Amino acid sequence: MSETKNFTLAVVPGDGIGPEVTTEALKVLDAVAAQHGVTFERTEYDLGAKRWHATGETLPDAELEEIRKHDAILLGAVGDPSVPSGVLERGLLLKLRFTLDHYVNLRPSKIYPSVGSPLANPGEVDFVVVREGTEGPYVGNGGALRVGTPAEIATEVSVNTAYGVERVVRDAFARAQARPRKKLTLVHKNNVLVHAGHLWKRTVDKVAEEFPEITVDYLHVDAATIFLVTDPARFDVIVTDNLFGDIITDLAAAISGGIGLAASGNINPDRTAPSMFEPVHGSAPDIAGQQKADPTAAILSAALLLEHLGLTEAARAIEDAVTADIEERTGVARSTAEIGDAIAKRAAG
Amino acid sequence: MSETKNFTLAVVPGDGIGPEVTTEALKVLDAVAAQHGVTFERTEYDLGAKRWHATGETLPDAELEEIRKHDAILLGAVGDPSVPSGVLERGLLLKLRFTLDHYVNLRPSKIYPSVGSPLANPGEVDFVVVREGTEGPYVGNGGALRVGTPAEIATEVSVNTAYGVERVVRDAFARAQARPRKKLTLVHKNNVLVHAGHLWKRTVDKVAEEFPEITVDYLHVDAATIFLVTDPARFDVIVTDNLFGDIITDLAAAISGGIGLAASGNINPDRTAPSMFEPVHGSAPDIAGQQKADPTAAILSAALLLEHLGLTEAARAIEDAVTADIEERTGVARSTAEIGDAIAKRAAG
Ligand SMILES: CC(C)[C@H](C(=O)O)[C@@H](O)C(=O)O
Ligand SMILES: CC(C)[C@H](C(=O)O)[C@@H](O)C(=O)O
Repeated sequence: MSETKNFTLAVVPGDGIGPEVTTEALKVLDAVAAQHGVTFERTEYDLGAKRWHATGETLPDAELEEIRKHDAILLGAVGDPSVPSGVLERGLLLKLRFTLDHYVNLRPSKIYPSVGSPLANPGEVDFVVVREGTEGPYVGNGGALRVGTPAEIATEVSVNTAYGVERVVRDAFARAQARPRKKLTLVHKNNVLVHAGHLWKRTVDKVAEEFPEITVDYLHVDAATIFLVTDPARFDVIVTDNLFGDIITDLAAAISGGIGLAASGNINPDRTAPSMFEPVHGSAPDIAGQQKADPTAAILSAALLLEHLGLTEAARAIEDAVTADIEERTGVARSTAEIGDAIAKRAAG
Repeated sequence: MSETKNFTLAVVPGDGIGPEVTTEALKVLDAVAAQHGVTFERTEYDLGAKRWHATGETLPDAELEEIRKHDAILLGAVGDPSVPSGVLERGLLLKLRFTLDHYVNLRPSKIYPSVGSPLANPGEVDFVVVREGTEGPYVGNGGALRVGTPAEIATEVSVNTAYGVERVVRDAFARAQARPRKKLTLVHKNNVLVHAGHLWKRTVDKVAEEFPEITVDYLHVDAATIFLVTDPARFDVIVTDNLFGDIITDLAAAISGGIGLAASGNINPDRTAPSMFEPVHGSAPDIAGQQKADPTAAILSAALLLEHLGLTEAARAIEDAVTADIEERTGVARSTAEIGDAIAKRAAG
């Protein structure tokens, strides 16, 4: 008999629909754990809007250091209209991504045949976006002068380093190498953002020499949005900066079955800190607490978590359960818990 | 008998398909000129890849000052793979937009019932994007250190001023006020780019007080791309920054009949310098010189030019001719000139 292996999870349910979808993701994790000889010991962290209102805290450093001790992090969603825009996003979500060096923000897109796409003829869509997670316009190096006066000036600085770009580009090439189509598309805007754009382009050209089997192309971000609606099947692996990645992965989710299905991993490939898994969708405060949210994206994020921990079979069990569930979706609304129950049952299969 | 009024046009055919589509736009302009009692005196400027290869020049200041003396500018497309990315875009196109203070980059999107959209159910799409044209990440205030070494760092600075944001926001509100639905959506990313984003948000909130009839909402740029494919009919006037505007207008073009139909005006509403009209599409070097390009976007840009010059009826004649032409499109390929001829004939009607 094999031993049971225990993994520690830090759980951040967060705001809005975050807690509801996280409950279902954990339910499904538990459902597959037993057969795959693992257990998950969870610690929940009360972070988000409520905490901020009560204490003014977003993510105290001591708590971040506790979270760091876990094997992985599962996050629901962050952000609430009652909190000034940016406070929770920067102070909690981005603080986690940056401090834990989640430089690969992995976002797969797949069209399930049974799920309606808003596109008339989407074709066979199965690509993954490798979004840089620790640089670009997300670094928080902006500022403002004379705020609220007619002479106000506000800046945002995009910071890009050879160190930061090369490591994510290498990760993307390795992923492309492991996929059947072996294709990598760099998305940037190097005809306008020439300094950052040329660094990205030169880095891709350099690393490409080590991956002769990979077909490489380049698209400006504006052109990429066109292809995402006219020919999304052309993409295999996309590598791009933090902001462009944010934009195109929401679009990618929208064309491939909707934001209710889009999972993501904030990955630290060097494993110097735990990686974090979360749905691409936001906290959707308008439907929070009503059991209306689709937990599938959170559940698929849990599958990415398992894969990252090396539990490939358990990950596959969840993915297969989700695929089977999606194939039977009839359009009749189910509650968040009902969807979670159905997928958990199948995954435990 | 009414007098004939003469307008002076600076024409920059540019690169790739630019010259071909510009020829058709001028053909259509001439076709409507006579009945509307106007003539267009044209001066062509040889700017773009060929000129750069021959002389190393993109847009000498003396030539810019000549161009400035015209009533308006018609531009084809700029950019060629034989020129390092950014040289022509920054040195020619953006130099024109910035120096001539084209702070309103106007990009209408409309679905013509007969034109296939990649969306299964696009609905009634008729919105306009007011893209800021003189600030944001386009200002060219970036730089790089230790280029080509492992210690390289490249920055791009987005500059946003109360002056620059307020004038474009006012223009967008005025446009919303003149439209039946009276709706304005601000698109930004104020949960991450907090300094620039909050300046935009505060400015919209302030100007909104002067326009009590306008319904105002806000979307993060990532969410905006979702709505552009799931519910584009929700939009009326969108106001946004230079980079977000670049991205969402290509997407908007893609969902509404394609980039072959998308026109734009780089407008200086204060008329301190000539405005410039150009298709949204690029120079498409792969199909250049083959009479394969659709000149409709360039022709509709000429209609925007007429409207800007106060020649509303002439503009309407072109728009109606384009609508009629589009309604009869059968899918049989026509050459660039054939499409131009057909629209010119109808417009002269
Ligand atoms: C909530 C927000 C800060 C976040 C981002 O911009 O990265 C979200 O949009 C995402 O894509 O995970
Ligand atoms: C060619 C390029 C510099 C330009 C831009 O980014 O503005 C184009 O994409 C556009 O939208 O007009």
